[in-house]
Amino acid sequence: MSRDTAKDTDNPNSTASNDANTASKPQDSVTFALAQSHFLVGDITANAEKMRTLALQAREQGADVIIFPELGLLGYPPQDLLLRPSLSGRIKSALSSLSDIDDIVMIVGYPHVDHHGTFNSAAILHNGHQKGFYHKQILPNYGVFDERRYFDKGRNQVLFDYKGITIGLLICEDLWEKGPIAELKKQGADLIVSLNASPFEIEKQDNRKTMLAKRSRENNLPIIYLNAVGGQDDLVFDGGSMAIQADGSVAHEASRFMNQLMLATFNVKTAKFNTQAKAPLSLSRESEMYQALVVGLRDYVNLSGFTGIIVGLSGGIDSALTLCIAVDALGADKVYAVMMPYEYTSQISLEDAQAQARRLNVSYTVCPIFDAVEGIRHTLAPLFNKSPADTTEENIQARARGVVLMALSNKFGHLVITTGNKSELAVGYSTLYGDMAGGFDVLKDVYKSQVYKLASYRNRLEDTPVIPERVITRPPSAELRPDQKDQDSLPDYDVLDGILMSYIDEDMGYQDIVDKGFDADLVAKVIKMVDNSEYKRSQAPIGTKISHKAFGRERRFPLVNKWSIKG
Amino acid sequence: MSRDTAKDTDNPNSTASNDANTASKPQDSVTFALAQSHFLVGDITANAEKMRTLALQAREQGADVIIFPELGLLGYPPQDLLLRPSLSGRIKSALSSLSDIDDIVMIVGYPHVDHHGTFNSAAILHNGHQKGFYHKQILPNYGVFDERRYFDKGRNQVLFDYKGITIGLLICEDLWEKGPIAELKKQGADLIVSLNASPFEIEKQDNRKTMLAKRSRENNLPIIYLNAVGGQDDLVFDGGSMAIQADGSVAHEASRFMNQLMLATFNVKTAKFNTQAKAPLSLSRESEMYQALVVGLRDYVNLSGFTGIIVGLSGGIDSALTLCIAVDALGADKVYAVMMPYEYTSQISLEDAQAQARRLNVSYTVCPIFDAVEGIRHTLAPLFNKSPADTTEENIQARARGVVLMALSNKFGHLVITTGNKSELAVGYSTLYGDMAGGFDVLKDVYKSQVYKLASYRNRLEDTPVIPERVITRPPSAELRPDQKDQDSLPDYDVLDGILMSYIDEDMGYQDIVDKGFDADLVAKVIKMVDNSEYKRSQAPIGTKISHKAFGRERRFPLVNKWSIKG
Repeated sequence: MSRDTAKDTDNPNSTASNDANTASKPQDSVTFALAQSHFLVGDITANAEKMRTLALQAREQGADVIIFPELGLLGYPPQDLLLRPSLSGRIKSALSSLSDIDDIVMIVGYPHVDHHGTFNSAAILHNGHQKGFYHKQILPNYGVFDERRYFDKGRNQVLFDYKGITIGLLICEDLWEKGPIAELKKQGADLIVSLNASPFEIEKQDNRKTMLAKRSRENNLPIIYLNAVGGQDDLVFDGGSMAIQADGSVAHEASRFMNQLMLATFNVKTAKFNTQAKAPLSLSRESEMYQALVVGLRDYVNLSGFTGIIVGLSGGIDSALTLCIAVDALGADKVYAVMMPYEYTSQISLEDAQAQARRLNVSYTVCPIFDAVEGIRHTLAPLFNKSPADTTEENIQARARGVVLMALSNKFGHLVITTGNKSELAVGYSTLYGDMAGGFDVLKDVYKSQVYKLASYRNRLEDTPVIPERVITRPPSAELRPDQKDQDSLPDYDVLDGILMSYIDEDMGYQDIVDKGFDADLVAKVIKMVDNSEYKRSQAPIGTKISHKAFGRERRFPLVNKWSIKG
Repeated sequence: MSRDTAKDTDNPNSTASNDANTASKPQDSVTFALAQSHFLVGDITANAEKMRTLALQAREQGADVIIFPELGLLGYPPQDLLLRPSLSGRIKSALSSLSDIDDIVMIVGYPHVDHHGTFNSAAILHNGHQKGFYHKQILPNYGVFDERRYFDKGRNQVLFDYKGITIGLLICEDLWEKGPIAELKKQGADLIVSLNASPFEIEKQDNRKTMLAKRSRENNLPIIYLNAVGGQDDLVFDGGSMAIQADGSVAHEASRFMNQLMLATFNVKTAKFNTQAKAPLSLSRESEMYQALVVGLRDYVNLSGFTGIIVGLSGGIDSALTLCIAVDALGADKVYAVMMPYEYTSQISLEDAQAQARRLNVSYTVCPIFDAVEGIRHTLAPLFNKSPADTTEENIQARARGVVLMALSNKFGHLVITTGNKSELAVGYSTLYGDMAGGFDVLKDVYKSQVYKLASYRNRLEDTPVIPERVITRPPSAELRPDQKDQDSLPDYDVLDGILMSYIDEDMGYQDIVDKGFDADLVAKVIKMVDNSEYKRSQAPIGTKISHKAFGRERRFPLVNKWSIKG
């Protein structure tokens, strides 16, 4: 519905009857409902049904307009489902299934397919009519985004008049650039509605607020910012939808990480939103990271249909934190902890693993792997011909544990989750098919130094710490040979993580990292370890993205290449 | 060097001295050297050195112009190496390292970074000067391609005059659309030079010829088509570079899958290429597939620095074919075959595995896994509590084999390759961390029905078949329980592959596949199996793409989603 081409559809309120539920509202006002709700990828019919329910609920509460997230009808990111031949027909019938909803304008995110192409679009539905549609103009194709794989660019601004104001539509990335909103302003917009599916990363909500304040002030325009919520594979959408005044201040902010139907009333005369009686608490860094990890795991497990999860405990901090997140995500009754001691497992580890499980009240099983390891070693003995022990024997222990956990998974139908952190995965300090065996790696995007912070954070939430203090203070060890410590083969985690964050999250090169003050040889060694572990990561389970650059779809390197570190 | 902006650089021959090596050539001719050579991803300095060597060699042979593949200086596809901050400096110094090469025009594919953006470009180098550069206009962002993640679009045509002809430049995808070559024609091009990095898939060379014939005829223009060659992770570039006359006929065609410096002389007066004395044999479908698999494996192993490979034999056809490909790729002395019998391994399988290894003259070891499996089962017994056997016990066998092969890999430093075919991987008929454990899956993109064809093809190449006939004729079995046959749980492979090819390679939906004549329930069942196996495939090793749609980067589906089959 470009202004140029669709003048006739610009005025939904010509057919609207707003006789109900408006008694308590100020006159000359428009109430927007922000449907911050989890729309599941692929679940078109159910998503339409959810839209119906929310629209009726919003209307009941006096809303004039309800806004759904970017691509909400299909879920985000749908990836190659967008190429399925039946997509267009399914979308059309879902949209028309909503046509009997009267007396509320619905702005629905959906993929639009016509002879011009495929678009990431927002439809304006009102009283059984599709009053127009907007196609996203700026298509992100970096980081985790592949939108130019699927979508054609929209070329037109879309505005519509309703109850005395002119509303301009934007979708997600459109607002991160200066142009589209400025063009809407030029064409007469009084207010912007922006549909989003913006994945969580650390500090993202702050960045959104900064950006929204800037855009609203630049154009003296109020903005409704509606975000998606919920986990989808490695991404978590963290909600935090907002209504922003024209001066850049936040009038309304929805909860993070939770479904919420938030209402914001816009006074046409003052051109201001009413303000929220009680704004949600701002989350600490640890709190938002922790919640993202909980939601990511919860939705992956529930969507994949598993009734429980299995986690191997080692007595160490990674599995301890993973266990907390698992319990917070799914409840203690769905979590099965297994401790698999071998020769090098310390008494402390056994005690601490048991203590963790007890404090969290989860099923706890001890399954010593002596027989499995011995059996494997017997099988290999004739081939190994008494060669001296090396990392092979360590990997055998890790893989025996992987086999045990997967057998429990196969037998009892639970999902094995893994406990590897980002520091380990970065430098390849992990065993393929061993501790990397499982369907979801909870701490995949959490550096070891962050693991400590999150463990302390979680302990502070309750009077009795759920993770025994000793687990946090003792030196980390994989316990795969006598007296092994992580720091035998790796630098201190604070140093390691400093180099890794520079190289991975900040995309810095060797020289710039050295110039930060790190030891040159160590930087070269760490970069080499990262580069040499691409093949391992290519077979790693997925895990929730929380950083600016997570391993996986966000970071795509050739498995074999000859790029030199120093160049 | 758009015609509009760089007139002064349009005439490299004004500074060229062509006094050497031209005695035997017809007057008024230009000789092009097509440098179909393997340029390694990331190896910028070595790639520049290779370009130097080839340029000098071509000049020695009388060439006036030498053409290198798309992005040859960096290798293709470089993926996120394109985002490395030191890229631009490395590229600049590599380009200037070529500036002392006189008397031959070099057309070099490279990533161009300047304040306008990053481009997929071709530089025209001549006698120490960069005479101009062309930026690719059509950036593919579908299938295996992510070019819009990295590159900005070129906006200008680039032509240059040399020895009486006007040459227009294009890069790969540019030529698959009608526009860019037509624009070059309009601007006065006499001949097109196209730099490519076009990955192999079945029938691709035929498609290229059809496209080239069409474009040359549409515009009455001769075309030089230079393709990359060699394996890079899951892609194989198959060469087959060509010189095409203006009437669409092939004047020269380089070998497939091999390095070659091919010369083509263009007669300026007749506007025709000389013709090739002996054109290469056209390859059969089986032959091109087989060669692609050999090159893909060879280059992956060599580039990753392994000195040998380990393959688990089962006595069945998949591992038999894999073994042939491994030997053809690396030589018998680098291949280590291991047979790991258990209770359900038949005598026939033992005999046939040994026969395969003997006929191919590779190291052969029998390593029974009784002890390993028994050890694992003992470890699990208290937890399993005498529950009846199910697929858990089958997976334990497969995983015990995986652990054994990985232990051999760790101990002796060889790469484990896997033998799973596309049909199995599609429906999830394989064990994660079991038969899927390894760094490269040779048959990943080969359907079972194609495995049979390739096995027969390979047997026909020698007087004595390298794969015993019985391996091809006996019913396939995973031998994980007594008298198990694949067809106990799967439809006949011809039927299964028919459905799979429709669903995966041809992207058809349920109804269209049923309309082809397949049983509706079976189609639904197979689609469900494919969709439910995304998580397995997400942790599978890479393997060479040979089909129109390979698993991996070419096919990106959410691991969890609620898309319904029939919808």
